[in-house]
Amino acid sequence: MQSDYVHGYSERESVRLADQANCLSDLLHHDSIFPENSLVLEAGCGVGAQTKIVAPKNPKSKFISIDISEESLQEAKSLIQSLKIRNVEFQSGDIFKMNFADEYFDHILVCFVLEHLSKPLDALQSLKRVLKKGGTITLIEGDHGSAYFYPDSSYARRAIDCQVQLQKLNGGNALIGRELYPILVNASFSQCSVSPRMVYVDSSRPELVEGFTRNTFTAMIEGVKEKAIDNSLMSESDFNKGVKDLYRTSESDGVFCYTFFKGVGYK
Amino acid sequence: MQSDYVHGYSERESVRLADQANCLSDLLHHDSIFPENSLVLEAGCGVGAQTKIVAPKNPKSKFISIDISEESLQEAKSLIQSLKIRNVEFQSGDIFKMNFADEYFDHILVCFVLEHLSKPLDALQSLKRVLKKGGTITLIEGDHGSAYFYPDSSYARRAIDCQVQLQKLNGGNALIGRELYPILVNASFSQCSVSPRMVYVDSSRPELVEGFTRNTFTAMIEGVKEKAIDNSLMSESDFNKGVKDLYRTSESDGVFCYTFFKGVGYK
Repeated sequence: MQSDYVHGYSERESVRLADQANCLSDLLHHDSIFPENSLVLEAGCGVGAQTKIVAPKNPKSKFISIDISEESLQEAKSLIQSLKIRNVEFQSGDIFKMNFADEYFDHILVCFVLEHLSKPLDALQSLKRVLKKGGTITLIEGDHGSAYFYPDSSYARRAIDCQVQLQKLNGGNALIGRELYPILVNASFSQCSVSPRMVYVDSSRPELVEGFTRNTFTAMIEGVKEKAIDNSLMSESDFNKGVKDLYRTSESDGVFCYTFFKGVGYK
Repeated sequence: MQSDYVHGYSERESVRLADQANCLSDLLHHDSIFPENSLVLEAGCGVGAQTKIVAPKNPKSKFISIDISEESLQEAKSLIQSLKIRNVEFQSGDIFKMNFADEYFDHILVCFVLEHLSKPLDALQSLKRVLKKGGTITLIEGDHGSAYFYPDSSYARRAIDCQVQLQKLNGGNALIGRELYPILVNASFSQCSVSPRMVYVDSSRPELVEGFTRNTFTAMIEGVKEKAIDNSLMSESDFNKGVKDLYRTSESDGVFCYTFFKGVGYK
């Protein structure tokens, strides 16, 4: 796993990830329901932004949530404790070197993790080892190539592409959402199915304008400004114009579209 | 209205429009239901590709379907006759110069028309005149900027952009889907709402691979090859590579995404 995420671990980032999860939780997780008494591995739980949504939805199942970053795990632990959620156990762990016995888990959940990995297929194969036969793996990822908006802006598109390029430089893939189906099939999961979860935002949906267009997506792009300039991907003034144009899409006549993908496969 | 559509009126094009409607009819029209006994204006019916889906869904309403092209109207008439659909009356007509009395229609439907117009707002204002107070206008449009796929290909993206540029040269807008909300609001319709209709295609959905990725979208891009080359937008070999790469997305590990937008407003 990459230890130096493009998204970083800054405090602002933690707030952003929590914002994102709150406003998108229904879209992504309305169907994140496991059979009662399941033992579920959440692989790459980060700061617990998805854990806090999915664990309470499955009160009769137990979650083991692992992450490679001790700092994120600590944050996730205090978040889950503060919410009085009691069916999650946190463990330090690397997806590629897990100590769990073969076929240990009933189900596996992997949210916003594959995008950071240079070898997502290897990750799925490693995860498959610890999954019971007949168990499911659920993948959720975004795809930055799915972002488009009104008014259109080449500066905004280039600023988004900076994030895609930085993710690539870091060994990741910000366009992985569209690839979930072939990845699941290549990892030899069966009955694979992918459902897109499109976020459509116009001013009739003010919570999404704030919660998604401004505080999730544009804030994330704004967050890579320094790295984009350091890597000579865009000039500071062009990047600023791109971010300004992204915020422009949150005005009363603006529209913003983005799609997440949720894939499920059976072992 | 533009009389020289980028999509053209060739026989192949008629087949393509029919293919598109068949495979997308549920996605686009499952909710194209008007109250019984409505008088509905279908503005810009073309060859009847949408008429043949929507009219039978509303057997107790009457449709007046107009188009500026006599050739398309003739084709639409024989299609609807051959299907024994009896609640449609065809009339030659220009959206910008209609002879109907003010507030003549209960509801209005406009599918894949605004993309061809240089002044879509004027079209809506003209249509609004013949709509009763409390009546609805329904708009359906695609957005070529919503197309993305796996494997990604810059040639394919450029070939799609040729279609966008040609539509623009012709006074139209192939990215109009994302604009439906502001257009409806600017035309002073009320209670405006837009719902995206995303087509997600992978090899677990073979009908869509054939019916959408290959026979609808890629065929449409392939259809503008000559004009793209004539207008020096792309070299023939690059364009061919783009089309080949689009067909590549229909293989077993390929994925194709496209989004239509359906907007409704009240007078």
